[in-house]
Amino acid sequence: MRTVKMIVEYDGTDFSGWQFQKNGRSVQAEIERAVGQLFQEEIRVTGAGRTDAGVHASGQVCHCTTTTPMDEKSISRGVNALLPEDVVVRDVEFVPKEFHSRFSAKARRYRYYISQGPAAVMRRYRWVVGYALDISAMQGCSAAIRGDHDFQSFCKEQAEVNHYRCTVTKAEWEKSGQDLVFEIVANRFLHGMVRALVGTMVEVGRGYRSDADFARICAAKDRSEAGMAAPPAGLFLEQVFYE
Amino acid sequence: MRTVKMIVEYDGTDFSGWQFQKNGRSVQAEIERAVGQLFQEEIRVTGAGRTDAGVHASGQVCHCTTTTPMDEKSISRGVNALLPEDVVVRDVEFVPKEFHSRFSAKARRYRYYISQGPAAVMRRYRWVVGYALDISAMQGCSAAIRGDHDFQSFCKEQAEVNHYRCTVTKAEWEKSGQDLVFEIVANRFLHGMVRALVGTMVEVGRGYRSDADFARICAAKDRSEAGMAAPPAGLFLEQVFYE
Repeated sequence: MRTVKMIVEYDGTDFSGWQFQKNGRSVQAEIERAVGQLFQEEIRVTGAGRTDAGVHASGQVCHCTTTTPMDEKSISRGVNALLPEDVVVRDVEFVPKEFHSRFSAKARRYRYYISQGPAAVMRRYRWVVGYALDISAMQGCSAAIRGDHDFQSFCKEQAEVNHYRCTVTKAEWEKSGQDLVFEIVANRFLHGMVRALVGTMVEVGRGYRSDADFARICAAKDRSEAGMAAPPAGLFLEQVFYE
Repeated sequence: MRTVKMIVEYDGTDFSGWQFQKNGRSVQAEIERAVGQLFQEEIRVTGAGRTDAGVHASGQVCHCTTTTPMDEKSISRGVNALLPEDVVVRDVEFVPKEFHSRFSAKARRYRYYISQGPAAVMRRYRWVVGYALDISAMQGCSAAIRGDHDFQSFCKEQAEVNHYRCTVTKAEWEKSGQDLVFEIVANRFLHGMVRALVGTMVEVGRGYRSDADFARICAAKDRSEAGMAAPPAGLFLEQVFYE
């Protein structure tokens, strides 16, 4: 048996998310089908992170085990030929059998794209806010996000976790034309965390809340204190880091 | 009567092009409908360039005449509220009555985006070539494009023009991650010219043709000598320049 690591890109628009679902198209099921068909065996893939419906990925990572004798390049070409056009395998690599895409991951990087002005092009990949935002106020919030904090206020209810602490090593807004891009790197992410953070920061950027409110929300450990979740279209899982 | 200049962005994917057509959704018709509804009068808009089906624009320019007493900001907001989500008016300006979006234009800028690797995200806005291209060979071609030349070899049959000379002030490839971007500025563009140029340069970039072939094609003044037209999805009308 060999363990195969794959880096996957997908357009989340027409998916109900990464994870297999009974009634909905999932990225995981598409990959399991394509890889299984190529290897002529039953395949189960595990992803590093479960992206929600409509969320995109340029660097999702998943792995599976197989008995195939095929080499990496042939797997990559073969799987891509069998995948639908909104999923692509960017890289295939054989890894030690200890490798686990989720549990071996040391950090993940997400980006969130906002269009301040109205936008026709790229609206699949942006939150079209349609208003000028106060980026310096939003930078103030992102400074408060960096470091080791309890992010319960930015987490959807989730039975599986036993604590809400995350170590954020990067959290920063950048301007790119009329777009604003938020980049965040952390050791772990709670369910809905990036979208809740962005949604709340945009409320600060529009002047509905102050920086001080933001600090208070963080301290409250209560999801109802934070703002609305930003829409999924703007969010990309960019990269998963391993040792 | 006042003349209104509008800068328009659109996602060309679901349009049969800029220009009004009997059987097909056109950007022009959508704008005429929205502006006419807002002004409560019959409106005809004229565009600076007729983009083909599937071609996008971030900076198309059009104009119309009207008796409306509304100010620029109200027009912009009103029209955007009435347009479908794949068309947006980015700017509205009252201009002297001599202004004509097409005949007053001094130059136009287009960009063409290619993805060398496989791509799932952005495939509406890219030509997904899926192979590494020899960018320095393509740069050689773009150098040959710059200047004052006859571009008949890169023009779809077109009864309306009486000559094929264009003055190209910029023609350049740039690398951006795994994407290649071609930017071209010229005083005028012939029908299908950018897509024919890009299609031919990609054949050079894949090694099917040489730089020398490219120079010969330019000299031949025969469309059948050039390569296939690059697909519309990668092409953007970026900007129209006026005095």
